[in-house]
Amino acid sequence: MLSGTWDVRIAKNNDAVEIAQLLHDFNTEFETPSPGPRILADRLFALLGSDGTFALLAGRPAIALALVTLRSNVWYDGRVALLDELYVVPGHRNQGVGSAFMNELVGSAKAFNIDLIEINVDEGDADAQRFYARHGFVSAEPVTQARAFYFFRDFTTPPE
Amino acid sequence: MLSGTWDVRIAKNNDAVEIAQLLHDFNTEFETPSPGPRILADRLFALLGSDGTFALLAGRPAIALALVTLRSNVWYDGRVALLDELYVVPGHRNQGVGSAFMNELVGSAKAFNIDLIEINVDEGDADAQRFYARHGFVSAEPVTQARAFYFFRDFTTPPE
Repeated sequence: MLSGTWDVRIAKNNDAVEIAQLLHDFNTEFETPSPGPRILADRLFALLGSDGTFALLAGRPAIALALVTLRSNVWYDGRVALLDELYVVPGHRNQGVGSAFMNELVGSAKAFNIDLIEINVDEGDADAQRFYARHGFVSAEPVTQARAFYFFRDFTTPPE
Repeated sequence: MLSGTWDVRIAKNNDAVEIAQLLHDFNTEFETPSPGPRILADRLFALLGSDGTFALLAGRPAIALALVTLRSNVWYDGRVALLDELYVVPGHRNQGVGSAFMNELVGSAKAFNIDLIEINVDEGDADAQRFYARHGFVSAEPVTQARAFYFFRDFTTPPE
Protein backbone atom coordinates (compact mmCIF):
# COMPACT_ATOMS: atom_id res chain seq x y z
CA MET A 1 0.00 0.00 0.00
CA LEU A 2 1.33 3.39 -0.90
CA SER A 3 -0.30 6.63 0.23
CA GLY A 4 1.50 9.80 -0.76
CA THR A 5 5.21 9.37 -0.14
CA TRP A 6 4.62 7.14 2.87
CA ASP A 7 4.55 3.39 2.66
CA VAL A 8 1.59 2.51 4.89
CA ARG A 9 1.27 -1.14 5.84
CA ILE A 10 -1.02 -3.24 8.02
CA ALA A 11 0.79 -4.46 11.10
CA LYS A 12 1.31 -8.15 11.78
CA ASN A 13 1.53 -9.94 15.16
CA ASN A 14 5.30 -9.70 15.11
CA ASP A 15 5.09 -5.89 14.97
CA ALA A 16 3.65 -6.01 18.51
CA VAL A 17 6.90 -5.07 20.28
CA GLU A 18 7.54 -2.09 18.01
CA ILE A 19 3.94 -0.85 18.31
CA ALA A 20 4.03 -1.28 22.09
CA GLN A 21 7.07 0.99 22.30
CA LEU A 22 5.38 3.65 20.12
CA LEU A 23 2.23 3.58 22.29
CA HIS A 24 4.28 3.76 25.45
CA ASP A 25 6.27 6.73 24.06
CA PHE A 26 2.98 8.37 23.03
CA ASN A 27 1.56 8.21 26.55
CA THR A 28 4.84 9.23 28.10
CA GLU A 29 5.01 12.30 25.85
CA PHE A 30 1.47 13.33 26.81
CA GLU A 31 1.91 12.41 30.50
CA THR A 32 -0.75 9.71 30.38
CA PRO A 33 -0.27 6.52 32.42
CA SER A 34 1.04 3.47 30.55
CA PRO A 35 1.28 -0.12 31.79
CA GLY A 36 4.69 -0.27 30.07
CA PRO A 37 5.91 -1.67 26.72
CA ARG A 38 6.04 -5.30 27.84
CA ILE A 39 2.39 -5.55 28.91
CA LEU A 40 1.31 -3.58 25.84
CA ALA A 41 3.29 -5.93 23.58
CA ASP A 42 1.61 -8.99 25.09
CA ARG A 43 -1.82 -7.46 24.60
CA LEU A 44 -1.02 -6.32 21.05
CA PHE A 45 0.26 -9.74 20.06
CA ALA A 46 -3.13 -11.19 21.02
CA LEU A 47 -5.21 -8.30 19.67
CA LEU A 48 -3.49 -8.14 16.27
CA GLY A 49 -4.14 -11.85 15.88
CA SER A 50 -7.89 -11.32 16.42
CA ASP A 51 -10.36 -9.83 13.96
CA GLY A 52 -11.27 -7.04 16.38
CA THR A 53 -8.10 -4.93 16.10
CA PHE A 54 -5.76 -3.80 13.37
CA ALA A 55 -2.94 -1.30 13.14
CA LEU A 56 -1.36 0.71 10.35
CA LEU A 57 2.35 1.50 10.41
CA ALA A 58 4.54 3.86 8.38
CA GLY A 59 8.31 3.70 8.02
CA ARG A 60 10.88 1.04 8.90
CA PRO A 61 11.55 1.35 11.77
CA ALA A 62 7.99 2.56 12.29
CA ILE A 63 7.69 6.30 12.89
CA ALA A 64 3.88 6.38 13.07
CA LEU A 65 0.98 4.24 14.13
CA ALA A 66 -2.80 4.12 13.74
CA LEU A 67 -4.62 1.68 16.01
CA VAL A 68 -8.19 0.68 15.17
CA THR A 69 -10.72 -1.52 16.99
CA LEU A 70 -13.87 -2.93 15.44
CA ARG A 71 -17.27 -3.86 16.75
CA SER A 72 -20.79 -4.64 15.57
CA ASN A 73 -23.67 -2.18 15.64
CA VAL A 74 -27.34 -2.86 15.11
CA TRP A 75 -27.76 0.09 12.72
CA TYR A 76 -25.17 -1.24 10.28
CA ASP A 77 -24.71 -4.43 8.32
CA GLY A 78 -20.94 -3.94 8.31
CA ARG A 79 -18.60 -3.15 11.14
CA VAL A 80 -17.99 0.01 13.12
CA ALA A 81 -14.34 1.05 13.49
CA LEU A 82 -12.97 3.27 16.22
CA LEU A 83 -9.65 5.01 15.63
CA ASP A 84 -8.25 4.53 19.12
CA GLU A 85 -4.81 6.02 18.56
CA LEU A 86 -3.02 8.04 15.88
CA TYR A 87 0.59 8.74 16.75
CA VAL A 88 3.49 10.18 14.79
CA VAL A 89 6.89 10.47 16.48
CA PRO A 90 7.97 14.07 17.12
CA GLY A 91 10.57 14.26 14.32
CA HIS A 92 8.11 13.27 11.60
CA ARG A 93 5.06 15.43 12.28
CA ASN A 94 3.55 17.69 9.62
CA GLN A 95 4.98 15.50 6.86
CA GLY A 96 1.69 13.99 5.71
CA VAL A 97 1.91 10.64 7.43
CA GLY A 98 -1.33 11.22 9.38
CA SER A 99 -3.11 12.00 6.12
CA ALA A 100 -1.57 8.90 4.53
CA PHE A 101 -3.11 6.81 7.35
CA MET A 102 -6.51 8.48 6.96
CA ASN A 103 -6.46 8.03 3.18
CA GLU A 104 -5.68 4.36 3.70
CA LEU A 105 -8.42 3.93 6.34
CA VAL A 106 -11.06 5.73 4.31
CA GLY A 107 -9.99 4.08 1.06
CA SER A 108 -9.95 0.58 2.56
CA ALA A 109 -13.17 0.90 4.58
CA LYS A 110 -15.25 -0.97 2.01
CA ALA A 111 -12.65 -3.77 1.71
CA PHE A 112 -12.62 -4.11 5.49
CA ASN A 113 -16.47 -4.23 5.60
CA ILE A 114 -16.43 -1.02 7.67
CA ASP A 115 -19.62 1.08 7.49
CA LEU A 116 -18.66 3.74 10.03
CA ILE A 117 -15.40 5.10 11.43
CA GLU A 118 -15.51 6.88 14.78
CA ILE A 119 -12.93 9.13 16.46
CA ASN A 120 -13.04 11.02 19.74
CA VAL A 121 -11.30 14.38 19.34
CA ASP A 122 -10.38 16.80 22.12
CA GLU A 123 -12.82 19.70 22.37
CA GLY A 124 -10.00 22.23 22.38
CA ASP A 125 -7.87 20.67 19.64
CA ALA A 126 -8.97 22.74 16.63
CA ASP A 127 -6.08 21.43 14.50
CA ALA A 128 -7.14 17.81 15.01
CA GLN A 129 -10.78 18.70 14.34
CA ARG A 130 -9.81 20.38 11.06
CA PHE A 131 -7.60 17.41 10.17
CA TYR A 132 -10.47 14.94 10.55
CA ALA A 133 -12.93 17.29 8.83
CA ARG A 134 -10.55 17.39 5.83
CA HIS A 135 -10.84 13.61 5.71
CA GLY A 136 -14.63 13.70 5.59
CA PHE A 137 -15.45 13.34 9.27
CA VAL A 138 -18.21 15.33 10.97
CA SER A 139 -19.26 15.87 14.56
CA ALA A 140 -22.82 17.06 13.90
CA GLU A 141 -25.49 14.36 13.75
CA PRO A 142 -27.13 14.66 10.28
CA VAL A 143 -30.77 15.09 11.40
CA THR A 144 -30.52 17.10 14.62
CA GLN A 145 -27.11 18.74 13.90
CA ALA A 146 -26.24 17.94 17.53
CA ARG A 147 -22.66 17.22 18.47
CA ALA A 148 -21.96 14.61 21.15
CA PHE A 149 -19.53 14.56 24.03
CA TYR A 150 -17.69 11.38 24.92
CA PHE A 151 -18.54 10.25 28.49
CA PHE A 152 -16.88 7.33 30.25
CA ARG A 153 -16.50 5.49 33.54
CA ASP A 154 -13.24 3.64 34.16
CA PHE A 155 -13.56 0.66 36.50
CA THR A 156 -9.80 0.10 36.80
CA THR A 157 -9.27 3.25 38.86
CA PRO A 158 -10.95 3.87 42.23
CA PRO A 159 -13.93 6.28 42.07
CA GLU A 160 -13.18 9.91 42.99
CA MET B 1 -31.79 -9.23 38.63
CA LEU B 2 -33.73 -6.60 40.49
CA SER B 3 -32.80 -2.91 40.47
CA GLY B 4 -35.17 -0.66 42.34
CA THR B 5 -38.74 -1.58 41.48
CA TRP B 6 -37.80 -2.63 37.93
CA ASP B 7 -36.98 -6.18 37.02
CA VAL B 8 -33.98 -5.74 34.71
CA ARG B 9 -33.01 -8.81 32.71
CA ILE B 10 -30.41 -9.67 30.09
CA ALA B 11 -32.05 -10.23 26.73
CA LYS B 12 -31.84 -13.57 24.94
CA ASN B 13 -31.81 -14.24 21.18
CA ASN B 14 -35.55 -14.79 21.17
CA ASP B 15 -36.10 -11.24 22.47
CA ALA B 16 -34.77 -9.98 19.12
CA VAL B 17 -38.19 -9.21 17.59
CA GLU B 18 -39.34 -7.24 20.64
CA ILE B 19 -36.06 -5.29 20.84
CA ALA B 20 -36.16 -4.54 17.11
CA GLN B 21 -39.60 -2.97 17.51
CA LEU B 22 -38.39 -0.82 20.43
CA LEU B 23 -35.36 0.40 18.45
CA HIS B 24 -37.51 1.13 15.42
CA ASP B 25 -40.00 3.06 17.58
CA PHE B 26 -37.06 4.93 19.16
CA ASN B 27 -35.74 6.13 15.82
CA THR B 28 -39.22 6.90 14.52
CA GLU B 29 -39.91 9.05 17.60
CA PHE B 30 -36.66 10.98 17.10
CA GLU B 31 -37.03 11.18 13.30
CA THR B 32 -33.87 9.14 12.67
CA PRO B 33 -33.78 6.69 9.76
CA SER B 34 -34.42 3.02 10.58
CA PRO B 35 -33.98 -0.01 8.31
CA GLY B 36 -37.26 -1.33 9.79
CA PRO B 37 -38.07 -3.87 12.51
CA ARG B 38 -37.53 -6.96 10.34
CA ILE B 39 -33.92 -6.16 9.36
CA LEU B 40 -33.16 -5.04 12.92
CA ALA B 41 -34.58 -8.30 14.31
CA ASP B 42 -32.38 -10.38 11.98
CA ARG B 43 -29.30 -8.43 13.02
CA LEU B 44 -30.19 -8.60 16.73
CA PHE B 45 -30.75 -12.35 16.60
CA ALA B 46 -27.18 -12.74 15.35
CA LEU B 47 -25.67 -10.03 17.58
CA LEU B 48 -27.29 -11.26 20.81
CA GLY B 49 -25.90 -14.71 20.08
CA SER B 50 -22.35 -13.32 19.84
CA ASP B 51 -20.16 -12.20 22.72
CA GLY B 52 -19.88 -8.67 21.29
CA THR B 53 -23.38 -7.41 22.10
CA PHE B 54 -25.82 -7.65 24.97
CA ALA B 55 -29.07 -5.93 25.85
CA LEU B 56 -30.91 -5.21 29.07
CA LEU B 57 -34.71 -5.17 29.12
CA ALA B 58 -37.25 -4.01 31.69
CA GLY B 59 -40.91 -5.01 31.88
CA ARG B 60 -42.94 -7.73 30.15
CA PRO B 61 -43.75 -6.70 27.51
CA ALA B 62 -40.49 -4.72 27.50
CA ILE B 63 -40.95 -0.99 28.08
CA ALA B 64 -37.24 -0.11 28.03
CA LEU B 65 -34.01 -1.23 26.45
CA ALA B 66 -30.27 -0.71 26.92
CA LEU B 67 -28.08 -1.96 24.06
CA VAL B 68 -24.37 -2.46 24.68
CA THR B 69 -21.52 -3.45 22.36
CA LEU B 70 -18.09 -4.62 23.50
CA ARG B 71 -14.62 -4.43 22.07
CA SER B 72 -10.98 -4.82 23.06
CA ASN B 73 -8.64 -1.95 23.83
CA VAL B 74 -4.89 -2.03 24.25
CA TRP B 75 -4.98 0.09 27.42
CA TYR B 76 -7.20 -2.41 29.26
CA ASP B 77 -6.97 -6.07 30.16
CA GLY B 78 -10.74 -6.35 30.19
CA ARG B 79 -13.29 -5.21 27.67
CA VAL B 80 -14.56 -1.77 26.74
CA ALA B 81 -18.34 -1.39 26.57
CA LEU B 82 -20.21 1.24 24.61
CA LEU B 83 -23.78 2.02 25.60
CA ASP B 84 -25.17 2.36 22.07
CA GLU B 85 -28.82 2.92 22.96
CA LEU B 86 -30.89 3.63 26.06
CA TYR B 87 -34.60 3.84 25.34
CA VAL B 88 -37.66 4.03 27.55
CA VAL B 89 -41.09 4.14 25.92
CA PRO B 90 -42.88 7.48 26.37
CA GLY B 91 -45.40 6.32 29.02
CA HIS B 92 -42.69 5.05 31.38
CA ARG B 93 -40.14 7.87 31.49
CA ASN B 94 -39.01 9.47 34.76
CA GLN B 95 -39.92 6.29 36.65
CA GLY B 96 -36.37 5.18 37.40
CA VAL B 97 -35.97 2.53 34.74
CA GLY B 98 -32.96 4.30 33.17
CA SER B 99 -31.27 4.38 36.56
CA ALA B 100 -32.13 0.70 37.09
CA PHE B 101 -30.31 -0.07 33.83
CA MET B 102 -27.29 2.02 34.80
CA ASN B 103 -27.13 0.43 38.26
CA GLU B 104 -27.19 -2.97 36.63
CA LEU B 105 -24.50 -2.04 34.07
CA VAL B 106 -22.20 -0.47 36.63
CA GLY B 107 -22.84 -3.19 39.20
CA SER B 108 -22.23 -6.00 36.71
CA ALA B 109 -19.20 -4.47 34.98
CA LYS B 110 -16.72 -6.59 36.93
CA ALA B 111 -18.71 -9.78 36.30
CA PHE B 112 -18.79 -8.97 32.57
CA ASN B 113 -15.00 -8.29 32.56
CA ILE B 114 -15.74 -4.68 31.56
CA ASP B 115 -13.00 -2.16 32.47
CA LEU B 116 -14.52 0.90 30.81
CA ILE B 117 -18.04 1.96 29.80
CA GLU B 118 -18.38 4.68 27.14
CA ILE B 119 -21.40 6.76 26.14
CA ASN B 120 -21.76 9.54 23.58
CA VAL B 121 -24.12 12.22 24.94
CA ASP B 122 -25.58 15.13 22.99
CA GLU B 123 -23.75 18.38 23.70
CA GLY B 124 -27.02 20.21 24.38
CA ASP B 125 -28.70 17.51 26.47
CA ALA B 126 -27.93 18.73 30.00
CA ASP B 127 -30.45 16.29 31.53
CA ALA B 128 -28.71 13.29 29.97
CA GLN B 129 -25.30 14.63 30.99
CA ARG B 130 -26.49 15.03 34.60
CA PHE B 131 -28.04 11.55 34.49
CA TYR B 132 -24.75 9.92 33.45
CA ALA B 133 -22.75 12.06 35.88
CA ARG B 134 -25.01 10.79 38.70
CA HIS B 135 -23.99 7.28 37.67
CA GLY B 136 -20.28 8.07 37.94
CA PHE B 137 -19.53 9.01 34.34
CA VAL B 138 -17.27 11.92 33.41
CA SER B 139 -16.43 13.71 30.19
CA ALA B 140 -13.16 15.31 31.29
CA GLU B 141 -10.02 13.27 30.70
CA PRO B 142 -8.36 12.82 34.14
CA VAL B 143 -4.92 14.28 33.32
CA THR B 144 -5.66 17.09 30.85
CA GLN B 145 -9.30 17.74 31.93
CA ALA B 146 -10.09 17.90 28.19
CA ARG B 147 -13.48 16.81 26.96
CA ALA B 148 -13.76 15.06 23.61
CA PHE B 149 -16.22 15.40 20.76
CA TYR B 150 -17.42 12.35 18.90
CA PHE B 151 -16.48 12.54 15.19
CA PHE B 152 -17.59 10.03 12.57
CA ARG B 153 -17.71 9.23 8.87
CA ASP B 154 -20.57 7.06 7.62
CA PHE B 155 -19.76 5.04 4.50
CA THR B 156 -23.34 3.89 3.94
CA THR B 157 -24.53 7.33 2.89
CA PRO B 158 -23.11 9.26 -0.07
CA PRO B 159 -20.64 12.04 0.89
CA GLU B 160 -22.10 15.56 1.12
